[in-house]
Formats: sequence, C-alpha cells, structure tokens
Amino acid sequence: MATLKDVAAECNLTVTTVSRVLNNRGYISKETRAKVEAAMKKLNYRPNEVARSLSKKSTNTIGVIVPHIRHPYFAEMISNVENAASKKGYKIILCNSRGKDEMERKYLEMCSSNRVAGVILFSGGVAVEDFVGSNIPIVTVERFLESGTAGIECDNKEGGELATRYLIENGCKTLLHISGVTGNAMPADDRAKSFVSVCEECGVKYYTASSEVEVYENQDYHDFLTKVLTEHQDVDGIFASSDLIAAQLIQVLTKMGKSIPKDVKIVGFDDVSIASLTTPGITTIHQPIKEMATAAVDVLVAASEGKTVAKRTLLPVSLVKRETA
Amino acid sequence: MATLKDVAAECNLTVTTVSRVLNNRGYISKETRAKVEAAMKKLNYRPNEVARSLSKKSTNTIGVIVPHIRHPYFAEMISNVENAASKKGYKIILCNSRGKDEMERKYLEMCSSNRVAGVILFSGGVAVEDFVGSNIPIVTVERFLESGTAGIECDNKEGGELATRYLIENGCKTLLHISGVTGNAMPADDRAKSFVSVCEECGVKYYTASSEVEVYENQDYHDFLTKVLTEHQDVDGIFASSDLIAAQLIQVLTKMGKSIPKDVKIVGFDDVSIASLTTPGITTIHQPIKEMATAAVDVLVAASEGKTVAKRTLLPVSLVKRETA
Repeated sequence: MATLKDVAAECNLTVTTVSRVLNNRGYISKETRAKVEAAMKKLNYRPNEVARSLSKKSTNTIGVIVPHIRHPYFAEMISNVENAASKKGYKIILCNSRGKDEMERKYLEMCSSNRVAGVILFSGGVAVEDFVGSNIPIVTVERFLESGTAGIECDNKEGGELATRYLIENGCKTLLHISGVTGNAMPADDRAKSFVSVCEECGVKYYTASSEVEVYENQDYHDFLTKVLTEHQDVDGIFASSDLIAAQLIQVLTKMGKSIPKDVKIVGFDDVSIASLTTPGITTIHQPIKEMATAAVDVLVAASEGKTVAKRTLLPVSLVKRETA
Repeated sequence: MATLKDVAAECNLTVTTVSRVLNNRGYISKETRAKVEAAMKKLNYRPNEVARSLSKKSTNTIGVIVPHIRHPYFAEMISNVENAASKKGYKIILCNSRGKDEMERKYLEMCSSNRVAGVILFSGGVAVEDFVGSNIPIVTVERFLESGTAGIECDNKEGGELATRYLIENGCKTLLHISGVTGNAMPADDRAKSFVSVCEECGVKYYTASSEVEVYENQDYHDFLTKVLTEHQDVDGIFASSDLIAAQLIQVLTKMGKSIPKDVKIVGFDDVSIASLTTPGITTIHQPIKEMATAAVDVLVAASEGKTVAKRTLLPVSLVKRETA
C-alpha cells in the first residue's frame, strides 16, 4: 500500500505539501493539486483511516449488536441503521450475539477496543452490567438497559391495543396472544399487557402463550403453535407478537383445516417483508423501523459528540390491514 | 478512556511491565499479573486495537459489500459470514451498495482506507474496474470479476437442471422461467441457460421472462408477475430464480384463482427462510449458503496472509421438496 511519502517522492514535493493537498489546508496552486492527485491515482494511494483515527479519541464507526441477523425484523433494522449511518459518514461493524450473554460481552469489549463512536444494542434477553463503565455511548432499541445512554422504542402498548381491538371489532369471540420469548423484561412485553387489559375491558374470553427461548432462537414455532392451537380449539382471533410467528400460524392453521380469515383471524406485529409475502398477506402492527433506526444513529452520534440526548424516544405504531384479519 | 500509562500509574509499575503483562511477554510474577489485572479492571482499560492495527499492515476486519441487506438471501449470507469471521477472530464492516455503482466504489475506497484484511463482494450488477489496483484481496460470491482474487459460486447450472427436470417429471407440459435481473452477466444466468437446454432436450414448450432492475431493487414483483402470467395462461410449471419471486408467485397465482401445486407447480432457488414460511412451503434448490460464506472467509483470510488460493470455488446444490411442486 502506497504511503504519503511515496506520493511525495512520485511528484517531487514534500510530505507537508502533499498532506496539505489531502487535508485542504492552506494555499495550494491548481498545478500542484493536479500533480499530487495524479500521483495518488497512479500509486493507488488511500489515506490511512487507521492512522487518522488514532489521533482522534474515537473512529467514525458504530458497533451494531443484534441477537439474529437473518431474522427479518433485525435484517430490516440493520439495513436502515447502515443507511442512516452511511449518510452521516459512519460505517458499521455488525455483530451477531446469537442472544448469548458471553457473546454480547465479547462484542462490547471488541467495540470498545476498536474505539467505536458508540454501540447500538438491539433487543435481546441479556442484562449486561459491564456496560456501565464502558465510557462509550450505548443506545438500545426495544430493550431496557438502566445504564445505557438512551433507549429507542416503538409504542408497544398502543400496538397491543390496536391489534386486540381490531380482532374484537371484527367479531372474534375467543382471543389468543402468542409472544416470542418469556423471561427477561422487555419493552415488547407491553404488547401482551395491552392484550390482556383490552380483553378484560371488553369482557372477551382470552388465552396467552409464550414460547421457550430455544424456539425463539431457532425461529421455528411450528411444534409450539400446533400444541397451543390443539389445546385451544375454540380460538377465532390471534394476536401474534411478530410477523414471523404469524406466518407460521397461517401454515399450522391451514394444516389443521382452518381457513384464514374465515375461521381464525390473525394480527401480527412488526410489518417486515414477510408480512407482505405470505398468502394471505398478514394484517399487522407497523413498527416505524426506518424512523427507529435513524433515531438510534442520530442519538448515538449526538451523544458521542458530548451533546445531551433524550433518555427515551418512543415512536408511534399503526395498523396495516392486509388479508389475515 | 484509560490508557496504558494510567494503568501503570494505578499499580505503581512501569508501562513496560504493564505492556508485558498485556502481551504475555517475558517472565511476570503471579502477584504482578494480579495487580495489573486489578488496575485494568478498576480503570476499565481496553487495549487500543486502532493503535495495534497501525503497526500491522492491515486490521482483522473484513469489508462485506452486499446490494441489499434485507433481501433474505443476503441477510442469511451476512449472518453466516459474520459467524465464520467471528470464529477466526475477524470482525465485519457491513456495507449496503443498494446495487449502485458509485456506492460500491465509495465503499471499496472506504474499506481500503480502513486497511481491511480484504473485501467480500456479493452479487450485484456492477463491473468495477477500479478494483484492480486496490492491493487488498477481493473475494466475490455469485459474481464474475476478472480482476478479483477469488470467486465463490454455487452450481447454478446443476440447480437449473434439477429444478427443470423435477417440474417435467411431475407432469408439467408448459414451463416458464422467471429470473430476477437482466443486463449484467452473472453466474446465476446459468440457471436460465440450464432451463432452456433441458426444455429443448425434453421437447417441452417453454417461456422465459426477466424483470427490470427497478423491480429487483424494490423486491416487489407483483405487477411484473401478474403481467407475465396473464400473457401465458397455459403455464403449468414455473422455475423461479429466487424464493422471493416464488413467494410472490404463490400470491399472484392464488389471486388469479389457480391452486398450487394442483394447477401450477413452482420450484424456487436459494432455500432461504422465506421458502419454509409460505403456505404452501416452497420446493426449491438449496444453495449451500453456510459453506459458501465459510469458503469466502477462509479464502479471504488465506489470501490476506499471502497464501495461494483457489481462483474459483464451486459448491454443490440440491433439491429440497416442500409443497409447491
């Protein structure tokens, strides 16, 4: 790899002059600039960002830690975070914790060692106390973290209400809520809480079910759903806490000979690509993924510049009507 | 952020001694080591990887450039690349070119400036000649690049044959092949070539159709598919060049009143998560995504260490029977 010195030698100028051209500092004649640029091109010179970063306190890099890359919700989030970061001149280091405590900790240390500007930490079940002393801004998305810099969430409470009321308004008499993970307290838990309170308010019969962590990790809910639906044959309306679960509900119900939305109506959550790729398409609660990703990057960059940022940002959701309800 | 000097001051030792503990060099007593480690923990010290990288020729970072993050095929690839890289102690910088020439070039320059060990470049329609002089290994996946270091591909020719023969064996009389993008030459083009040659060999009537670049970018094939299927009402077997297209074919055909697989049989390509989430599930050609991702990382790391690597690696495909055919 060519160095600044090589470029200077190539065009018979001093390193100082070449550096001034590179950094747009001081007066440089048009001819000198052209000469330097030609030499850089010829030697295929690229400024060394590693060296530049060393003189600054941090790099223009954002660590992004997700529990699953290939889960459609996180894939969409990552895509939007990368886009928002790129627009601000930041690059992202992507880390897949696989929902594991020790992986998350390892990745946080790696991010810290690599002097990232900050870390965006996506929902995952882990409470990592080590974060406290990490000195770098940590922005969480759909996750509680007392010691984090800032949290971005969608209005899960409102989403749960919208979904449940829509099923009741459409004539459902016996409702079921299916959530992805049990155990750790997460903002998404508000979806189930809203479901229960709307059912009780309206005097509608209801069941709730949540899967084991292993099922969430494999992203294969078929056996779990078959078991739950066999136990509760009277259910005619289901609020699933993700579109991934809703897609598998369509498969399991179809195999059981039920017609959707005639026999059973379904409302999902997330509004990721899968919701518009199933047959029938999934009626769902739209999470403002693009806005959440942009907010996470904005807050992180502001915090890394020492600015005061909102401790919590709550973004609105909406109901998207497709064919399952 | 605490420095090595801070740690040395904290435990009343020299920077040299602390550095020896950190790098496991020379004899260090158990007591000294414990003292240094306690100080590091107290000050929350993290070794500066940026400084370490500067003394080496490159970083333990791999640039990963994809045309779409949220496309299920690339999401799955990214997940597997991250996993393979992580196991080898490498981190990934993820870049979304959105299939754009200038974005890809910009990201390649960024990767080069950040002294990555190499770049893994995923299928995208762009021919970037600038790569030639970049001096860093470039491994392509499902993409031709004369000047790249190495290419990883699945056996697209075999995949096209398997899919087409399976439709014919299952009684289809009029076949249609739908491919994602036209224009740039890509290894995936072999799928269509195999389709045509098997149809001609077996004397089966066939059509082919490929979408515009815009459709591929939006990932919304509904209008395009409706148009093609309205033109060719006699089709009873379709080979789609991706599961994403196959999922949308199920939707469009269902809306046209056709039953799958009774009236029309479908075979997809990729075997990504969407193939097992639709109703009915998609019969498809399995790409060995995990093995391709691992091979890409292995080849890249070997090349970055100056080893001689295979110019081209071709991995086998297989037919996965689900419900659409």
